[in-house]
Amino acid sequence: VGERGVIALVTGLLPVAAGAPLLGPGDDAAVVAAPDGRVVVTTDVLVEGVHFRRDWSSGYDVGRKAAAQNLADVAAMGGRPTALVVGLGLPGVLPVDWVRELAGGLADEAGAVGAVVVGGDTVAADAVVVAVTALGDLEGRPPVTRSGARPGDVVVVVGRLGWAEAGLRLLRAGSTAGPLVDAHRRPAPPYRAGPALAALGATAMIDVSDGLVADLGHVAAASGIRIDVELSALRRLGAEGVDDRELLTGGEDHALACTLPPALRPPEGGIVVGVVRRGAGVYIDGEPATGSGGHVHFGPGTGRPGSAGLDSAGRRGRS
Amino acid sequence: VGERGVIALVTGLLPVAAGAPLLGPGDDAAVVAAPDGRVVVTTDVLVEGVHFRRDWSSGYDVGRKAAAQNLADVAAMGGRPTALVVGLGLPGVLPVDWVRELAGGLADEAGAVGAVVVGGDTVAADAVVVAVTALGDLEGRPPVTRSGARPGDVVVVVGRLGWAEAGLRLLRAGSTAGPLVDAHRRPAPPYRAGPALAALGATAMIDVSDGLVADLGHVAAASGIRIDVELSALRRLGAEGVDDRELLTGGEDHALACTLPPALRPPEGGIVVGVVRRGAGVYIDGEPATGSGGHVHFGPGTGRPGSAGLDSAGRRGRS
Repeated sequence: VGERGVIALVTGLLPVAAGAPLLGPGDDAAVVAAPDGRVVVTTDVLVEGVHFRRDWSSGYDVGRKAAAQNLADVAAMGGRPTALVVGLGLPGVLPVDWVRELAGGLADEAGAVGAVVVGGDTVAADAVVVAVTALGDLEGRPPVTRSGARPGDVVVVVGRLGWAEAGLRLLRAGSTAGPLVDAHRRPAPPYRAGPALAALGATAMIDVSDGLVADLGHVAAASGIRIDVELSALRRLGAEGVDDRELLTGGEDHALACTLPPALRPPEGGIVVGVVRRGAGVYIDGEPATGSGGHVHFGPGTGRPGSAGLDSAGRRGRS
Repeated sequence: VGERGVIALVTGLLPVAAGAPLLGPGDDAAVVAAPDGRVVVTTDVLVEGVHFRRDWSSGYDVGRKAAAQNLADVAAMGGRPTALVVGLGLPGVLPVDWVRELAGGLADEAGAVGAVVVGGDTVAADAVVVAVTALGDLEGRPPVTRSGARPGDVVVVVGRLGWAEAGLRLLRAGSTAGPLVDAHRRPAPPYRAGPALAALGATAMIDVSDGLVADLGHVAAASGIRIDVELSALRRLGAEGVDDRELLTGGEDHALACTLPPALRPPEGGIVVGVVRRGAGVYIDGEPATGSGGHVHFGPGTGRPGSAGLDSAGRRGRS
């Protein structure tokens, strides 16, 4: 088909509006409802070879994953996702079916949470680049930031921990199927828990994308408090085949971690994994796991896979 | 510095908030005011080697250009730009100063129109990728789409035509300075004319990014009308050194083209270049320049520069 052919074809594939934005694709810009008078916005970029491999993930998987990590960021503010726009860099060698699957994955993941793909841009590139921006509505609530945790709060996690990281290890070892491999290919973030926890009264919330220790480190640093976590409680969020290192440092499952005042009962599916104290840093079973700035110094073997292939290092620059 | 070093450094550089969003960078997502209860959203991706060359454009130039093309899309809906989020793919070899300049260019172009950079994501990539998403507010007005032009309307263009295309030709021929070369490096879209034309009563509007003939073709197709343009009037929007082909097919200056009911006086800076009639397609001095679908068949030599180097072909997939 060739580069221009792919780009022309994808124009008909993207965006795939599964709902009804106020003004959808086909004009200079889309128009999306923002009934709250504010809009939540976040962007993430996935690059082939850095965040996914086409021999390990289908186009559909990559679409789901690219949408998921942005939709989860909206949920982590307590927002209800409303819309996605998608920028695609596409190599000429890319099969058109792969792009068709990618568009389907993006639309399906958005649709699962009631959001729609309202616009896009496709350009030629040497590697597949998927740049997604998600919008969301706060439904009248204040955004739940990383900075509101208070001593005495309990730490609650909803979702999976370490599954995707263990799945990546299994893919490297030659596995091609199973729940952990599937979790690497398609995260299943607990989107609806975001607005629910915000409505319940969460004082701080974060999307677990850098690993629980690192992300709770961000909350501890932003809130000026210390977080104590019990490993035995965390293990309830793992799965058979997920080791403790993966539980503590694996990102990409997009669990939601929040802090709740102690009088509040965590919602169904929420696991209390620790408490907020005066101080700084994150402690696991009483041992320091991060410095006061959130930097993980949990000991050897806890780092990300590093430069040798697929990892999440590129996401360190998120803000 | 190395790849990780650049990514770590850019975290401190991007986003550069020049104003006051409701919640800026540093959390899972930003929160931007949407006082209208709707939000305009558009995304565009620039790729090194496809949309810019680092030996022809500085990091600052690329930042200005990447912001400009998105802000112009918001203006073309009649919107006032409010915020940008930026996804960056950065090669390890990239000088940190280049990235610093890029961030400065993004912030300055946004700031010039009262918008702010509220969030970003930086990832490793083989070539520089700049994925910008712009948000905007409609200030209570309906969006001005491509589909509202009516027979009898006049066609008004605000901004430059062909400057950037001529500048690209001069760069290819070895020029390194001058107003046309500058226009290629940094477009100067007439942002404020967007909301002004919307308030005045524009019936259709488009950002001229594919070239005037192609973009008026989109308006003609979406509105179900014919547009007749006078070349002599168009020449007032060119400059010394811009040839007629560049005037008609050069994109990237991001002029705004709109249709206005004939009773309305065009605003200062707006040039009447033609009229809307019953029929289909775009005509230049009475000769057909596009088919009814907007496809340019203006004759030999009017195509984009093609695959031999820098061009705008990648933007054909915009929607």
